[in-house]
Amino acid sequence: MGTNVELFEVSLRDGLQNEKKVISTDDKLRHLEALLEAGLKDIEVTSFVRPSRIPQLADAAELCARLPKRDDVRFWGLVPNRKGMERALDAGLDHLCTVVSASDTHNRKNLNRTSRETLAANREIFQTVRAEGGQARAYLSTAFGCPYEGDVPPERVGELAGELYQAGAHFVALGDTIGSGSPELMQRVLSEVYAAGVPAEALAVHVHDTQGTALLNVYTAYQLDVRRFDGSVAGVGGCPYAPGAAGNLASERIVHLFEQMGVETGVDLRGLANAGSQLATLLGKTSGGPSALIAQLKGLHVRSA
Amino acid sequence: MGTNVELFEVSLRDGLQNEKKVISTDDKLRHLEALLEAGLKDIEVTSFVRPSRIPQLADAAELCARLPKRDDVRFWGLVPNRKGMERALDAGLDHLCTVVSASDTHNRKNLNRTSRETLAANREIFQTVRAEGGQARAYLSTAFGCPYEGDVPPERVGELAGELYQAGAHFVALGDTIGSGSPELMQRVLSEVYAAGVPAEALAVHVHDTQGTALLNVYTAYQLDVRRFDGSVAGVGGCPYAPGAAGNLASERIVHLFEQMGVETGVDLRGLANAGSQLATLLGKTSGGPSALIAQLKGLHVRSA
Repeated sequence: MGTNVELFEVSLRDGLQNEKKVISTDDKLRHLEALLEAGLKDIEVTSFVRPSRIPQLADAAELCARLPKRDDVRFWGLVPNRKGMERALDAGLDHLCTVVSASDTHNRKNLNRTSRETLAANREIFQTVRAEGGQARAYLSTAFGCPYEGDVPPERVGELAGELYQAGAHFVALGDTIGSGSPELMQRVLSEVYAAGVPAEALAVHVHDTQGTALLNVYTAYQLDVRRFDGSVAGVGGCPYAPGAAGNLASERIVHLFEQMGVETGVDLRGLANAGSQLATLLGKTSGGPSALIAQLKGLHVRSA
Repeated sequence: MGTNVELFEVSLRDGLQNEKKVISTDDKLRHLEALLEAGLKDIEVTSFVRPSRIPQLADAAELCARLPKRDDVRFWGLVPNRKGMERALDAGLDHLCTVVSASDTHNRKNLNRTSRETLAANREIFQTVRAEGGQARAYLSTAFGCPYEGDVPPERVGELAGELYQAGAHFVALGDTIGSGSPELMQRVLSEVYAAGVPAEALAVHVHDTQGTALLNVYTAYQLDVRRFDGSVAGVGGCPYAPGAAGNLASERIVHLFEQMGVETGVDLRGLANAGSQLATLLGKTSGGPSALIAQLKGLHVRSA
């Protein structure tokens, strides 16, 4: 495995679903163009939940119909269940993400069933996606702590990650839903996940920055061979089902960290700062976020959206 | 050297001097009580610059006259020069901080002379403080990068740190003024500083969170034997002479990190969250800062100020 890192951009899904302001399909496509210009190759564009549940993503089918043709880019859609999968496939997506929580309570609040019931349903999605020639990515939420249960045993995270991988997921993304991860916990969790047979190549880490430890956890995971990281430009988003869970880790910070370390991401930080600045403006957020600061320190000119 | 960590609280000085709102001496003393209640033992309470330059700290003498009598706590005052030192000693403080920038341009903008000219003047301060039975702490600013010069050679940082220590400073605090530090740079800088004869026991790290890497740099410094860290509750403050330098790293985040790691800080996180929440309210800041988030995740009740 090389020293390169792959960034998985979630601003259009995990980001927007947690912002009050609903953005038009046109604006989403403009943001997508900025992300592509920055060099991103894995972009989660929407989710196929009931439109009434997440109005911000109600335009999933229209958005997918208007995606640019890019053979070198993977556009991902999140599907909560079989019905969502069918809508996603109908919309032309064959790179699908599923969600299981490591803690039953969080899974019940989110999907109204136990973790293993959801996992069993995911298996069918993975197999269908494989038959379609696509790829499947399983989010394993609350892998570092649950807002309802508190600590989640790393052994359980390892077991579930192993089962998701055995069930056919190409990638398993460990989610730090409430930002409660630490270097020590990352080590314990990854040790269990590797022991359960999930190779580092199939792993991703999806961290939230609730307590400011997200970048430290990314760094620790990198030291422990993880090479795939989720980020959301300008740090927008979070988890609506986890009280207290603040925004995603800003993609700019991840790329900046790896640039400092001399690790290739394939992403242009200036382009990413443009995309982040553009999205923040669309959402009516004031400046001063990571894009602005990083651009300032690097002496970059960030064009206003 | 043990595994314990000592926190150096800078909210009353580095924090307040960078907030527009001027807080009354009464309110400062109330904040100080909250810090003491949280168990802090090293607190920088003010600076002795010209009152016209930093109106927020113009009450230095009055504040010092009203400090609680606590033999187990060290109250620190920052002095830019000999005149400031005399005012501080007159006010009853004998734990004094000085400032030198590792980059000449930053030092000139800040103090209107070269780094080594300031260093020579500091020597007299260190000797006087020692003669008074107190302690001296030398901030070495821009140790990880300068807003005017960019990169600062680690060799130069090592040399200056060594000279400050040889000149009589009990402690040298390496300042990441613009938040440009990285794990690799921390390693290079500390390696030079140790090679210059400064022992880990005499070192502190003072990081700013401009690019979100501050906690990672604290963690890296800890791995490299540093045991003293500066923080400002609620993350208030920054550096008025460094464009783009956002707030200090929140003390709550430092304590939270070490709690996660099982490292003793002697500070009660609940008490610290109280102090942070109180200060944020005094400054008219909205909630949602580190205190609120950390308290929420830990299920703590933070009393409103």
